[in-house]
Amino acid sequence: MRLVTYRASVEAEARLGAIHDNTIIDLARFGAAKGVELPSSMLEFIDLGPSAVTAVSALIDSCDGNFGVGCTMPLANAKLLAPIPRPRKNVFGIGLNYTEHVAESAKSLDTSTELPREPVIFSKPPTTVIGPDEPILHNKEITKQLDWEVELAAIIGTRAKGVSREDALAYVFGYTVCIDMSARDCRRAGQWIYSKGQDTYCPMGPVVVTADEIPDPQTLDLWLTVNGVEKQRSNTAYMLFKVDELVADISKGITLEPGDIIATGTPAGVGAGRDPQEFLWPGDTIVATVEGIGTLRHPIVDA
Amino acid sequence: MRLVTYRASVEAEARLGAIHDNTIIDLARFGAAKGVELPSSMLEFIDLGPSAVTAVSALIDSCDGNFGVGCTMPLANAKLLAPIPRPRKNVFGIGLNYTEHVAESAKSLDTSTELPREPVIFSKPPTTVIGPDEPILHNKEITKQLDWEVELAAIIGTRAKGVSREDALAYVFGYTVCIDMSARDCRRAGQWIYSKGQDTYCPMGPVVVTADEIPDPQTLDLWLTVNGVEKQRSNTAYMLFKVDELVADISKGITLEPGDIIATGTPAGVGAGRDPQEFLWPGDTIVATVEGIGTLRHPIVDA
Repeated sequence: MRLVTYRASVEAEARLGAIHDNTIIDLARFGAAKGVELPSSMLEFIDLGPSAVTAVSALIDSCDGNFGVGCTMPLANAKLLAPIPRPRKNVFGIGLNYTEHVAESAKSLDTSTELPREPVIFSKPPTTVIGPDEPILHNKEITKQLDWEVELAAIIGTRAKGVSREDALAYVFGYTVCIDMSARDCRRAGQWIYSKGQDTYCPMGPVVVTADEIPDPQTLDLWLTVNGVEKQRSNTAYMLFKVDELVADISKGITLEPGDIIATGTPAGVGAGRDPQEFLWPGDTIVATVEGIGTLRHPIVDA
Repeated sequence: MRLVTYRASVEAEARLGAIHDNTIIDLARFGAAKGVELPSSMLEFIDLGPSAVTAVSALIDSCDGNFGVGCTMPLANAKLLAPIPRPRKNVFGIGLNYTEHVAESAKSLDTSTELPREPVIFSKPPTTVIGPDEPILHNKEITKQLDWEVELAAIIGTRAKGVSREDALAYVFGYTVCIDMSARDCRRAGQWIYSKGQDTYCPMGPVVVTADEIPDPQTLDLWLTVNGVEKQRSNTAYMLFKVDELVADISKGITLEPGDIIATGTPAGVGAGRDPQEFLWPGDTIVATVEGIGTLRHPIVDA
């Protein structure tokens, strides 16, 4: 399933929908029409556990396109929000998770040339999250080095503590796209949260593709453009620590919970790694895509 | 006011209480007895804004000890929980915020000898938080360097973005004690979240003292013992970045929200800084106190 959090109009409340062709099916209303209670938010849906995806998917398939009066709207008319507009904790980020990005970081930032032996974890507060098309704030009093990082994000579906790599993907609800915005000059004593944790620094969406539709998350092209010029292009095959390793590793010490988000790291091609370096300024637009999931487009605006 | 989150018995639900002499006043029940709606959780109380503290405090004072039938219980009989058992985002931690701790860290860990020019921020997921007397888990497969850090924690009361240092303390709801447990051998490429973010690594409590009772948070002794032997003793006067500077600094880029927690850093005397180094093992007990707030006591147990 392809799931979205959306508003039917600017003033309308946020709702949970499933995309079917070019239509959004409002899951709560669709459920009511079919005599089944379905949730109206992504987190509630995730909380129902993995069997809910199978059941709702089957229910949609059984309808032969008749989803009920008032239960659908054209995708083109909806305002999409971040799939989880307000995560329950900071987003987990993974640094230095593609070989060539490790090399470019060592040249331009203060990181090691050696490949990390374990995943390098940091976090982004819930206040970083914005939805498709929303502006990314450039605060010139804080940064002159605002940079881009396109990433595949995995969303946890089931509470995970000490899970094995073999079992790990069963704990993933689905996948989305995120941009790990990074103010390179806001690192402090090596800590990245102020660099990566400022308001609007985690654009996310436009959809969640449930894990059953992406059985192998390590086969996806991902790329990013700035003002139409391609800056990053790679494939999740080149991640140093794959999604299953990340889930297993984090869950050794930190309980992962339904709705937790892991941004899995960015490939080479960030602005700090270029010669000369390039950074983002108000008026720029970045567009980030992960194959099979979707595209995020964001203007940079003066804070 | 001195506020607690507590259970009347092991099975009972978590409630919000105010301490009066050696009694806990259940605020929601007390409110009902007086015809005023009062919340049953700390976060709901914080969300009411600063005027609620003044109003409830006045209401308690006006009662002359008659708080209503079934509205109180002896403090000694209650099970105290972390004041905010489930924060809405990761706890903000501040590293290297006492001069002598910067020196001991530079000797034993991979940090600079220079004093930081800006606050060094990291985070601890909500799953780290435990209440008074709860066991701290020692996972011997992950760490052989589990360490202690006693800290004053400030709890935000009002949404703060870009506030000045002069105004910053008005955004603080109150203060509590926390222990920033740190597995020194779990730092990764300089990032601290796996070191400081494992389950049970943020004991917190036993009470929140509202900010009106601590007009100057930079005058408090704080100390910590391991198995009865004093290891840390200092005063919040020696913080490099004071509470008002921390709130102002973080809020420049990251919106602070009601219920956000800032652990303000630890003084010298951690295990990693000793010669020879000392770390915690199952069977050890740590006791941490901040003057005027209270004491946390925690056993270390095998995970």
